Amino acid sequence: MQLAFGRAACSRFTFSILRLECDNCTMATIQLPGLIDAHVHLREPGFPHKEDFASGTAAALAGGVTMVLDMPNTMPPSATPALLAAKAALAAAGTRCDIGLFVGATSSDVDAYLPAAHRACALKIYVSDTFGSLRIETLALMHRFFRTWAERADEIGYRMTGAALGLGPIAVHAEELMLPVCLTLSRIYSVPLHIVHVSRRSEIELIRDAKEAGFPVTCEATPHHLFLSTSDLPRLGTRGDMRPRLATPDDVAALWDNLESIDIFATDHAPHTLAEKAGETPPPGVPGVQTLLPLLLTAVHDDRLTLDDVVSRLTSRPRRIYGLPAQPDTTVSVDVDARYTLSDADQVTRVGWTPFAGREVFGRIERVTLRGQEVYAGGEVLAAPGSGRVLFQ
Amino acid sequence: MQLAFGRAACSRFTFSILRLECDNCTMATIQLPGLIDAHVHLREPGFPHKEDFASGTAAALAGGVTMVLDMPNTMPPSATPALLAAKAALAAAGTRCDIGLFVGATSSDVDAYLPAAHRACALKIYVSDTFGSLRIETLALMHRFFRTWAERADEIGYRMTGAALGLGPIAVHAEELMLPVCLTLSRIYSVPLHIVHVSRRSEIELIRDAKEAGFPVTCEATPHHLFLSTSDLPRLGTRGDMRPRLATPDDVAALWDNLESIDIFATDHAPHTLAEKAGETPPPGVPGVQTLLPLLLTAVHDDRLTLDDVVSRLTSRPRRIYGLPAQPDTTVSVDVDARYTLSDADQVTRVGWTPFAGREVFGRIERVTLRGQEVYAGGEVLAAPGSGRVLFQ
Repeated sequence: MQLAFGRAACSRFTFSILRLECDNCTMATIQLPGLIDAHVHLREPGFPHKEDFASGTAAALAGGVTMVLDMPNTMPPSATPALLAAKAALAAAGTRCDIGLFVGATSSDVDAYLPAAHRACALKIYVSDTFGSLRIETLALMHRFFRTWAERADEIGYRMTGAALGLGPIAVHAEELMLPVCLTLSRIYSVPLHIVHVSRRSEIELIRDAKEAGFPVTCEATPHHLFLSTSDLPRLGTRGDMRPRLATPDDVAALWDNLESIDIFATDHAPHTLAEKAGETPPPGVPGVQTLLPLLLTAVHDDRLTLDDVVSRLTSRPRRIYGLPAQPDTTVSVDVDARYTLSDADQVTRVGWTPFAGREVFGRIERVTLRGQEVYAGGEVLAAPGSGRVLFQ
Repeated sequence: MQLAFGRAACSRFTFSILRLECDNCTMATIQLPGLIDAHVHLREPGFPHKEDFASGTAAALAGGVTMVLDMPNTMPPSATPALLAAKAALAAAGTRCDIGLFVGATSSDVDAYLPAAHRACALKIYVSDTFGSLRIETLALMHRFFRTWAERADEIGYRMTGAALGLGPIAVHAEELMLPVCLTLSRIYSVPLHIVHVSRRSEIELIRDAKEAGFPVTCEATPHHLFLSTSDLPRLGTRGDMRPRLATPDDVAALWDNLESIDIFATDHAPHTLAEKAGETPPPGVPGVQTLLPLLLTAVHDDRLTLDDVVSRLTSRPRRIYGLPAQPDTTVSVDVDARYTLSDADQVTRVGWTPFAGREVFGRIERVTLRGQEVYAGGEVLAAPGSGRVLFQ
């Protein structure tokens, strides 16, 4: 279903999860369910000068995102029950939207995460080069993580099957040849596998073929890998540096050509300060949670996506992959006709910039309601720190 | 079935592929079918100072091996129809036993090998560090080789299914994390996959589990990975350096514990001169084709293997994996009671050494017959260069 912004008659807005609020069809405000960004780095504990739960979830609400899943490569990493519990306490105090926490796998204490597995949204394994200290580099360890996860799932089930204490999938940062490594382990042990931020033709084509062959795999793509490429690097400099790196225009075309194989969109919101980005050893990563929806709605406007493509990949599908709870009475009102230019100044994230600064987009988030409470309206974040829920605790 | 050397009564030698030739049970000469070493490097063209078809197959016959499969990482590599045909001509002129040739995949001309695929015993892909120039390092190329092989098999079938022009498997040097890379591609495209020289616990355990999960995979182990370990390195120096490197005693134990998952034994006979081994940059690789059988028969003597374990892994199983033709009237007579010490001086390979020098073994090869012709007897190689056959031409 295609949404023809601004020109459509009311009768065209029959999309089941939408409700048009219009005034003789001159306004084009649509109401979406609260969105899920299944991949963010809110940097707490360890790097609050970049972001914390309060600042990162404020940016989320400003972007229409009412639930985020937060990655474990903080300092210290979320790799033991005690560390995950400590992070959950920080999150409970700071978060303005609902939040799930990943648990991380480390090479130093390989089974340490296990007692906390059911309190995490998923196990995250870093197989490829990334920011932080969680990279896994041997077959023996990878093998062990998948076998152990499968054994634990034998005991308590997977959350997406409705088990009370169930596990989520194993989510992996696995680029290039590390992708089929994870596919084999996932297939052998029947562990649901989620591939984060797919960026290359070789990767999305392999995932497509693996799905056809019955591998239990899902994947995500980020807005920066869909809307930026290596051709933007001269302009962006280190503001365009993240992991996986921006890919070639051919890689970007392959993502678009294989949209049906991309289960969800997620931002990999990974803020670093502009001072850090301008420094001697600029860390990889870019913010993104606030610009997610307008970038995708602009692609709808440009007839590259349907609204259903966008909404399903930000609501029902991440909910199914991670076994996430519903958020009743949670809506996002968007003026889909509003056209404006993204700017650093408008960014709510603590680091105050976006790699998409200067880009003209459609779709202004006007109001966000979470469980009946207005949490964002008129450009202001209204939710207090700690008003969101920490999932699975 | 266990063969009790020297002490057994004739009635115990009921093993179907054996025929006991004895004199009141005081001699213990057994007759085996001609053996297959499915992994040798005969170094021609490019490195005849190390080995050539005539010298390498002389060593094979002296070891009871009547068929070898020769690897493509020569100079130039066997990576195009013309190069494979040129190598086949050299082999036809030089070989004293039957020989099949692998074709190699290269990153420089990715589909070049394809028209010669059915003339090779298999496609060999080097995913891990090795001697030569054939290493493949990107997912896109790996993906392409497997997809292309599967498409070609759709046209002409796999040889092991009896197809007239059929293909063999894809054989890979894939250590550690490169192993599950190949497993995924093999499973997705239903390409039979043979893992050469497995050396680590992590690898054999993954192969075991992949087989249980239905992956179309077979594997081999070499005598040096079964009978040597890192604990031998101080004694061996560069004579113990090969790829994969000698593994830990725990890795070796894992190979023995998972013998049922090891489909075949093969030597990775990879001769370099002692001068090269003593040089500034010693190349990895050791000779092995001549010492294969006595080392394994000694393990039978030590009750670590049965004779069936050995013979099936050197005859029927490699024949099935690669779709190799039978060799009628081809036998190897072995005095299984003969006890002697392996020495450099006894090695027929041009390089004239073995990493097993000084080891006491059982089992002296007395006579080898190939298609009714005596090709080895009394310590002498009787077959002339060019008397063997080049397979699949």
